[in-house]
Amino acid sequence: MATLIAPANHSPHEDAEALRKAVKGWGANEKAIIAILGHRNAHQRQQIRRVYDELYQEDLIKRLESELSGHFERAVYRWMLEPTDRDALLANIAIRHIKTDYNVIVEFACVSSPEELLVLRRAYHHRHKRSMEEDVAASTTGPLRELLVGLVSSFRYDGNEINASLAEAEANILHDALRDKTEKREEVIRILSTRSKTQLIATFNRYKDLHGTSITKKWLEEASDEYHKALNSAISCIDDHKKYFEKLLHNAIFKKVGEDEDALTRVVVTRAERDLKDIKDLYYKRNSVSIEHDVSNELSGDYKKFILTLLGKEN
Amino acid sequence: MATLIAPANHSPHEDAEALRKAVKGWGANEKAIIAILGHRNAHQRQQIRRVYDELYQEDLIKRLESELSGHFERAVYRWMLEPTDRDALLANIAIRHIKTDYNVIVEFACVSSPEELLVLRRAYHHRHKRSMEEDVAASTTGPLRELLVGLVSSFRYDGNEINASLAEAEANILHDALRDKTEKREEVIRILSTRSKTQLIATFNRYKDLHGTSITKKWLEEASDEYHKALNSAISCIDDHKKYFEKLLHNAIFKKVGEDEDALTRVVVTRAERDLKDIKDLYYKRNSVSIEHDVSNELSGDYKKFILTLLGKEN
Repeated sequence: MATLIAPANHSPHEDAEALRKAVKGWGANEKAIIAILGHRNAHQRQQIRRVYDELYQEDLIKRLESELSGHFERAVYRWMLEPTDRDALLANIAIRHIKTDYNVIVEFACVSSPEELLVLRRAYHHRHKRSMEEDVAASTTGPLRELLVGLVSSFRYDGNEINASLAEAEANILHDALRDKTEKREEVIRILSTRSKTQLIATFNRYKDLHGTSITKKWLEEASDEYHKALNSAISCIDDHKKYFEKLLHNAIFKKVGEDEDALTRVVVTRAERDLKDIKDLYYKRNSVSIEHDVSNELSGDYKKFILTLLGKEN
Repeated sequence: MATLIAPANHSPHEDAEALRKAVKGWGANEKAIIAILGHRNAHQRQQIRRVYDELYQEDLIKRLESELSGHFERAVYRWMLEPTDRDALLANIAIRHIKTDYNVIVEFACVSSPEELLVLRRAYHHRHKRSMEEDVAASTTGPLRELLVGLVSSFRYDGNEINASLAEAEANILHDALRDKTEKREEVIRILSTRSKTQLIATFNRYKDLHGTSITKKWLEEASDEYHKALNSAISCIDDHKKYFEKLLHNAIFKKVGEDEDALTRVVVTRAERDLKDIKDLYYKRNSVSIEHDVSNELSGDYKKFILTLLGKEN
């Protein structure tokens, strides 16, 4: 479930006029901007952008960029882009900072449905005039490259069929690979980048049955280099992406292990219209405190207000 | 240009009735079958199939399969399937015989446009309940697997932009790879499976400028194992697929280097409505004899008549 609270009916014309007032003159009215844009769905935001352009011959996104600043500006910018175009931008930023941001690429490749990933890849062509796998391949080397290119290029079967004996065989391959890393790497990448998600989840379950511990736990302990960390993220994203995002949000709010506001913004902006409510519920279940509470304590200013609005806080 | 000669107007109803007559009773009327189906485009054939099913509660394809035999039956069967479904079938047959048929996979991956390849991959999901790259990966190993999975998984950028300095740099990588095979393999696969076709052709041209010989000639001399043969096919298919098909047709007609009627059928059936006319013209230019002449001499029976019809021979 989504967290975004948007009215069923809105007037793009009135919204555009109100936003014009909010950005005109000395200093923007951030409160008004949040009150409007923090309560409009993707379709409504694109309507507002179009009407604003017609009325004032000005790109609303560019105007907001110039009026706002810091994390708030970045969050509003990401929120205002058309979602697949935004994802193509986020993927490109991550590729340009691949040494630290390889997990963002893993997320896009493994959380998206097969058809969603194609839509992203097509949007990437359109925005960057190159393919996503091309840029990933050109900016990485070795095992990390093999894994990322495999995940990004995948167009998995999306059906619910499970081959139980295959799940067992491949659970064992994954288990063996933990002991003998170089030999089995090719097989691990093959399994994770080509099998359907349903089949992979069956494989992960079989792993747990056979070896008494979840594969993510086991891999995480072993995750020492980028390749193994990315592998662990891939397994987590395929196995249960909401759990993955819950942990990521928690780490980002408390700035743990390299996560920061960019990760927080990314997850909130990309999931607010999809399943952020479920992620919020997991957050509460796991931390015994609401994410709104932690955001209120750890963040500040307009950025905090905007994030809380997207998290579904009633005004 | 296509070779298929199909009427602008036809009656699916009359065609279905005529075909019913042709398959009823003792022994099919192959001449009538060729006269109708050899002159109907993909859309018309699917209309006939639908009307035939409505009129006689029978799948026309299955009936034809049971009435006909040998290469003729196989050709009619491939001709009658919906084209993307047929390609998914042909890809699956090739994967099941990957040790000899890996070039068919290279063809599908490298001749198709990026969007056509996605359509094929989607049809493969639908028909086989697995992904194409999944089946390729599970049935191959080593360098051949790396190459084939890379090619099949690609979703290349389809624009016409060329980066000239990149073309030069990568022409040199490809050249170096000929001397030092193991070290550079990863780079060769990266280049061939991720760059846009326009960019790759610029790279191949730069190779020729720099090294005085075409890359396909050079690679062909070196092509000793499956990986290098597949690599050579990939370069040929990307560089000029019509030339590639011309050579393949010639080898198939004269049963050279392992090619046979299956290759002949595949190329004729899949290209008759696309660019078989251009391939025929190349054939004549290269061999100073028409492909119809060679087919007439080397093939026989209804199979010969059907292939000649699809090649555009007037009745």
